[in-house]
Amino acid sequence: MSNTRAGTVSNFDTWKHAYAARAANLSVSEVRALFAVVSRPEVVSLAGGMPDVSALDGELIEQAFRSLMSNRRNYALQYGGGQGDLRLREQIQEIMALEGIQGSVENLMITTGSQHALELLADLFLDQGDAVLVEAPSYVGAVGIFRHKEAHIEHVFTDDDGISPVALAEAADRLIEQGRKVKLLYLVPNFANPSGVTLTAERRAQVLQVCRERGILIVEDNPYGLLYFDQKPPEALRAMDSEGVVYLGSFSKILSPGLRVGYVLAPPAIREKLILANESAILSPATFAQMMVSEYLSLSDWQGQIDTYRKLYASKRDAALEALAQYLPRVQTTRPQGGFFLWLTLPEGLNSKEMLPLAVDELVAYTPGTAFYGDGRGANNIRICFSHPTAENVKVGIQRLSNVVNPQLDRLVTLQAKH
Amino acid sequence: MSNTRAGTVSNFDTWKHAYAARAANLSVSEVRALFAVVSRPEVVSLAGGMPDVSALDGELIEQAFRSLMSNRRNYALQYGGGQGDLRLREQIQEIMALEGIQGSVENLMITTGSQHALELLADLFLDQGDAVLVEAPSYVGAVGIFRHKEAHIEHVFTDDDGISPVALAEAADRLIEQGRKVKLLYLVPNFANPSGVTLTAERRAQVLQVCRERGILIVEDNPYGLLYFDQKPPEALRAMDSEGVVYLGSFSKILSPGLRVGYVLAPPAIREKLILANESAILSPATFAQMMVSEYLSLSDWQGQIDTYRKLYASKRDAALEALAQYLPRVQTTRPQGGFFLWLTLPEGLNSKEMLPLAVDELVAYTPGTAFYGDGRGANNIRICFSHPTAENVKVGIQRLSNVVNPQLDRLVTLQAKH
Repeated sequence: MSNTRAGTVSNFDTWKHAYAARAANLSVSEVRALFAVVSRPEVVSLAGGMPDVSALDGELIEQAFRSLMSNRRNYALQYGGGQGDLRLREQIQEIMALEGIQGSVENLMITTGSQHALELLADLFLDQGDAVLVEAPSYVGAVGIFRHKEAHIEHVFTDDDGISPVALAEAADRLIEQGRKVKLLYLVPNFANPSGVTLTAERRAQVLQVCRERGILIVEDNPYGLLYFDQKPPEALRAMDSEGVVYLGSFSKILSPGLRVGYVLAPPAIREKLILANESAILSPATFAQMMVSEYLSLSDWQGQIDTYRKLYASKRDAALEALAQYLPRVQTTRPQGGFFLWLTLPEGLNSKEMLPLAVDELVAYTPGTAFYGDGRGANNIRICFSHPTAENVKVGIQRLSNVVNPQLDRLVTLQAKH
Repeated sequence: MSNTRAGTVSNFDTWKHAYAARAANLSVSEVRALFAVVSRPEVVSLAGGMPDVSALDGELIEQAFRSLMSNRRNYALQYGGGQGDLRLREQIQEIMALEGIQGSVENLMITTGSQHALELLADLFLDQGDAVLVEAPSYVGAVGIFRHKEAHIEHVFTDDDGISPVALAEAADRLIEQGRKVKLLYLVPNFANPSGVTLTAERRAQVLQVCRERGILIVEDNPYGLLYFDQKPPEALRAMDSEGVVYLGSFSKILSPGLRVGYVLAPPAIREKLILANESAILSPATFAQMMVSEYLSLSDWQGQIDTYRKLYASKRDAALEALAQYLPRVQTTRPQGGFFLWLTLPEGLNSKEMLPLAVDELVAYTPGTAFYGDGRGANNIRICFSHPTAENVKVGIQRLSNVVNPQLDRLVTLQAKH
């Protein structure tokens, strides 16, 4: 791909005159550039954001496939409805109930991963210049979608207790006063990507109130909620408000991202529009993948499999925190109680993006913090994904990272002493 | 679903104020409304547009799955790259070569069915009011996407030899003179959906020239090209012009639509933007489905399977034409040499949409012609899909259809005699 980067090719682009205005907002994500690096086996990748699918019992997948072929073969191979399979939606009801959500099958739609649910929602709500409120930092894939829709992305102050309701109200009011339509609040309330923090129960109620008072629709993205380490996170926002929240769920982290099966639970009118948009974009979600998930849920101890994942990721989180304490004691980190990520804050003056090539020379990769902001912030942050490498490699990776960061910290201290 | 139609629900839509402008262009497709009907076993559905997946050898699918699990399990279950799997793209090169196309793997991208390729392309090129030229009639799913992008849809005169290059030039020049940006020509050159007609070789060269002279990008959608009955269709437009044509292909008709695997071959700069758009929309195409297709292509006599389909669909086409000659001799029909569809033209004054409930009473369903126009035309047309029912049921369906159409024709003749 080295000779076909967009930057090079567009000099010879015959069709440059013909693109839509929104095409200018498509940019190469910082995560994407790392994919090539990840594939080198000698590099420990703390980038990515991938589940450890080697911990999935292959026999369960084979069982699901055999049952599919015996009982629903022609159905699985055929086009389906745009809303997705009814039986799978019934099974999803049970999964959502684990987080306190009572939703009807009529208001559920299956999507090509929850990413596509977010894409369809953004397309449904965002005109150019409309404001979207997001956490600081926020999920890179969401920032990318909102940028592509030419929206105004406003990061709201977020700390160890999640997004701040006070800052949220302040930001919304300021934007409304400026004449912006504040359409959406997008957030990952449990074990957030990238920060790892969880929104407290108290703040959930406050966030709901802030948004309700201002007519702002909440998009609650919850791929990690069931992957808690010690105790369950607070009840979902959707459990407290069925009219003001659109809820996104996914099988990517509790089963497999290669199937691309996610779902969205929305108020009826929104759900109806989402189905039309889904049909327009892809005709129907993949029946085969839906049936694989549905048979898996029918036949397997899927909650047991989630417990396996929870223990595995908890041990990797422990490995990461131990290694950070040992090798990078001067770097601040979040202490996630679930999920895949932790978020490092380096002293001001260090630049994680500039450090990345040095890190790759040391055979470790991570995602620079700027990827998670739409406004250039995050230069002194690093997202560490501990879910995919082995616990041992998580430690090795952090040790290698320290070989880059610590000398820079030393130099910074020396420089500051001089001034 | 009866109490949750968009029309009813939107009266109580809390979020009505918040939708983007483009949301107004989402409408319930006429094909969609038929899905409920199709599922009743006593109804013969000539609607739909579905392949006959019962003709697919199940052992081939099982073989593909076993190989996937043995050799590429963790890869298949994991996220992949936004462009899609390299090996599958190499295999697609071989398939495209059957239609005269030489394309590099670098310029191929895998999509969630070719529908999503079209969605991504439309999003990349169409600003509000931009013009898209299409056949008359055109594929309902394309018309839906272009409408959703708020484009101006211009149907160009099409006859048994496909779209007319003279009418194409005339329409393009007229629109350009009106100040419109004419961005795309979208067409299905082989055994078109819905008309079944094929663009002649002579016209292909002319269409390419008309578009080249005016800077109009051609989107060549070719899901049916390999499903010819007697002789191969002319070489693809993409085979004659690599810079002016974006080519869409699909496994939905030669393998299975339930996997949702399609592909797009585009000039480098466009391809690069499409990859970014694909990543933004769905992160990565489903690895599991891609591996199922790839293993199937590696292990099976897939060309033999296509031959099976060709013979099967040819026999169903024959059944349809025989039944039309027998039961509906006064109705005009196209005589497709491949694909899934034929297109009936009733005398002016008959309305196929109004007739549909009567047809359903007779236990037969079809798609009314208006679905395939963005401008209200097609009222006296009917699309017949002969691919999915058995040949016997194709005949039964057309006989039932004649019970509705013939009395209306008689009445029309009587009325006209009176005037």
